[in-house]
Amino acid sequence: MGQNLILNAADHGFTVVAYNRTTSKVDHFLENEAKGKPILGAHSIEELCAKLKRPRRVILLVKAGWPVDSFIEQLLPFMEKGDIIIDGGNSHFPDSNRRFKELGEKGIYFVGSGVSGGEEGARYGPSLMPGGAKEAWPHIKDIFQSIAAKSDGEPCCDWVGDAGAGHYVKMVHNGIEYGDMQLICEAYDIMKRVGKFSDKEISEVFGTWNKGVLDSFLIEITTDILAFNDDDGTPLVEKILDSAGQKGTGKWTAINALDLGMPVTLIGEAVFSRCLSALKDERRRASTLLAGPEIPDDLITDKKAFIDDLEQALYASKIISYAQGFMLIREAAKEYKWDLNFPSIALMWRGGCIIRSVFLGEITAAYRENANLENLLFHPFFNKAITKAQSGWRKTLATAVSVGIPTPAFSTALAFYDGYRSEQLPANLLQAQRDYFGAHTFQVLPEKANAKYEVGKAIHVNWTGRGGDVSASTYDA
Amino acid sequence: MGQNLILNAADHGFTVVAYNRTTSKVDHFLENEAKGKPILGAHSIEELCAKLKRPRRVILLVKAGWPVDSFIEQLLPFMEKGDIIIDGGNSHFPDSNRRFKELGEKGIYFVGSGVSGGEEGARYGPSLMPGGAKEAWPHIKDIFQSIAAKSDGEPCCDWVGDAGAGHYVKMVHNGIEYGDMQLICEAYDIMKRVGKFSDKEISEVFGTWNKGVLDSFLIEITTDILAFNDDDGTPLVEKILDSAGQKGTGKWTAINALDLGMPVTLIGEAVFSRCLSALKDERRRASTLLAGPEIPDDLITDKKAFIDDLEQALYASKIISYAQGFMLIREAAKEYKWDLNFPSIALMWRGGCIIRSVFLGEITAAYRENANLENLLFHPFFNKAITKAQSGWRKTLATAVSVGIPTPAFSTALAFYDGYRSEQLPANLLQAQRDYFGAHTFQVLPEKANAKYEVGKAIHVNWTGRGGDVSASTYDA
Repeated sequence: MGQNLILNAADHGFTVVAYNRTTSKVDHFLENEAKGKPILGAHSIEELCAKLKRPRRVILLVKAGWPVDSFIEQLLPFMEKGDIIIDGGNSHFPDSNRRFKELGEKGIYFVGSGVSGGEEGARYGPSLMPGGAKEAWPHIKDIFQSIAAKSDGEPCCDWVGDAGAGHYVKMVHNGIEYGDMQLICEAYDIMKRVGKFSDKEISEVFGTWNKGVLDSFLIEITTDILAFNDDDGTPLVEKILDSAGQKGTGKWTAINALDLGMPVTLIGEAVFSRCLSALKDERRRASTLLAGPEIPDDLITDKKAFIDDLEQALYASKIISYAQGFMLIREAAKEYKWDLNFPSIALMWRGGCIIRSVFLGEITAAYRENANLENLLFHPFFNKAITKAQSGWRKTLATAVSVGIPTPAFSTALAFYDGYRSEQLPANLLQAQRDYFGAHTFQVLPEKANAKYEVGKAIHVNWTGRGGDVSASTYDA
Repeated sequence: MGQNLILNAADHGFTVVAYNRTTSKVDHFLENEAKGKPILGAHSIEELCAKLKRPRRVILLVKAGWPVDSFIEQLLPFMEKGDIIIDGGNSHFPDSNRRFKELGEKGIYFVGSGVSGGEEGARYGPSLMPGGAKEAWPHIKDIFQSIAAKSDGEPCCDWVGDAGAGHYVKMVHNGIEYGDMQLICEAYDIMKRVGKFSDKEISEVFGTWNKGVLDSFLIEITTDILAFNDDDGTPLVEKILDSAGQKGTGKWTAINALDLGMPVTLIGEAVFSRCLSALKDERRRASTLLAGPEIPDDLITDKKAFIDDLEQALYASKIISYAQGFMLIREAAKEYKWDLNFPSIALMWRGGCIIRSVFLGEITAAYRENANLENLLFHPFFNKAITKAQSGWRKTLATAVSVGIPTPAFSTALAFYDGYRSEQLPANLLQAQRDYFGAHTFQVLPEKANAKYEVGKAIHVNWTGRGGDVSASTYDA
């Protein structure tokens, strides 16, 4: 990753000093990939800092966690006020908040930057999401925007906001990536198990979808993957263990959503789906013990309608996931007092990164039209899209539910949509239950208020006729 | 809560010393509720400790968080080695882990005990879940088991395990309570909006269900609540603001599930549902902007079948929720190295607490039969129950999905069931994607292994023919 970013910057005419604590790696790099390019080597941190012009701009690409702190500590003796330290790793945003503050007190400008796009992105144009000390931005803007991916000529990099905002936005990006991947997996599973399609057929469907509203990097690589055969001529993907890793940034996003009280259900289900996939041995045993419906071979009579409905289910669920993601970012901006630039965030994800898509161009346009858009679903483009998608979405899910194919992400997306558009949810009963067993009190609906039940007042009712004067102070449900 | 626990203990013949930092409350209590009972008062912590026989057994019922630490600090000067401090509040288990350790180093035995049952439970028999310093158990067992609720003559209280295990189990109890409440709300919403039932009819349905497999405290109070009319003769519940509070132990459970990598999806959705309910103003606007299907008045032609299917949906979802809860506890026991007693945990929840039910009697029996039961769904009783429930569960959800009623908890339960019983999930594609864009590698299915792809080996494939030798070390998706 580090080498590729260096090569990328060098190709854009910037002189870069490369350092790695394993100095033989530096030498190897200089003698090979870096040969003939404006790249210098350093064999110590002191040498690295001595070779940099001021203000020094050092970007770290090391493992998140203590290695970042350790590296910063080694850098500090050789840094001066006004120098800039950029953490380009996958750091958790509270760490970046802390580093921003600690380094700021020493007069060093800290920038936490999300970097997405994998190895190839780093080499030829990543998505970059820098945040932290705004004073640093004029000194790094030109480099960052030069090496970043471009979308319609615009760099997929802009200043995100204060403190850990850059890494926060990267975290949500990764959460959304978890969601997108899970949605694609569910679509594949439905075509395979309900439609009984071959991988080749499924690849062709994804290939077709990639020319429409779903046009995106992840759909593109899915098309490739499903068409990739092993030496024996059968699809390699069917030989891969269905047990996915997690515990990374997707989990952080779900936890942050719980902490901020925002219903980011699709990312939550995507993370839990990876957890369930990891219980492979237990699932193997469960598959022999737990009953389910049979899926007839001829269930799907109209293939085209089946595929079209599924495309709409995927598209609608994706709209929900991004709407939830932006709801979370909006709440974070409020909670952490960050001044965030929504059109830029969408543009930064438009190209270079794993979730890059045509779709993000539409989101960019929506936020450019109205930077204060309350919800993506309220914008005419997405509102129309999801209205149109509804019938296919519901049909797909009714089928999956009936024949026993798990669709946790599709299902939670629809549940969210139907809940979000419900003026009245059954939480009135829940509040009554809490008041009944714990005297937690409730409020009255404004339209039902009267002299006895005033708006905004905490009301307790003696539901049983017994006791009822207690007020719960410690019990919390 | 504290007063009620004192009265409960006094009724069982134990002499109790009451203390509150607002000493007038102590006097008022002694002159009123405590009159004629073996209850002494203390006006200072020093006096409290002087009046207690050794080893001193002090139970704190104060707000979770710093008040517990502050109280412990005030107690310590008057305590001696071998004395016992019991925290009966809703503390977060990592705090109890810490207090167990800190007090242990001082020779004081710390017990963190979950207490459930609300005010009435505290007075007449709560569910008690004590854990921490096992040395304390012989000194408090008699009191705890005397004042606890009884189920078929057995106390709903037993030793849970080390350190913060008592508060951990209480946390999961509360998470399950979130789930149970959400499931009941979804059943109510379906009867109201799909079946167009009156609250009186819905109350009658819950009343009937309370005589069957769903027999439980929460179904019982729901029956009461829906039958409770305001002065104008209309159901009070319909006047209550549908905006539920959260941020408590339900959230902790969901976060812990994410941390431990266990798919406790039902509690997750229940917490998120409360979050969504809290966005009342936004939902109000959304309800005017987002389209959905109309629900015909005569959709339900066979009321009995509709109700029976719904009962099965609720029952099956509840089985999933408890199976997930016990999966989490099992994983916690492994992760935190706690020796937990599964039959006792179920028995502690059998009576006294908010989730008390006949159902928990069945779970107790299942774990008594086999304390090492891998999954509740593998036990013949629950296996048979969920097999029988499937058809009604699927029909209910297919209808809800089609007509636009949100069922996040029902839906995630079914998605979990169908995922759990899938030997093969689509995570193979997900692993291929991760390897494609980030060189994350994958493993091969054991049954598809060969000389090229060995079992357990981390495999990377050059999916595109371009590059492909990179190995991702920092990018994590």
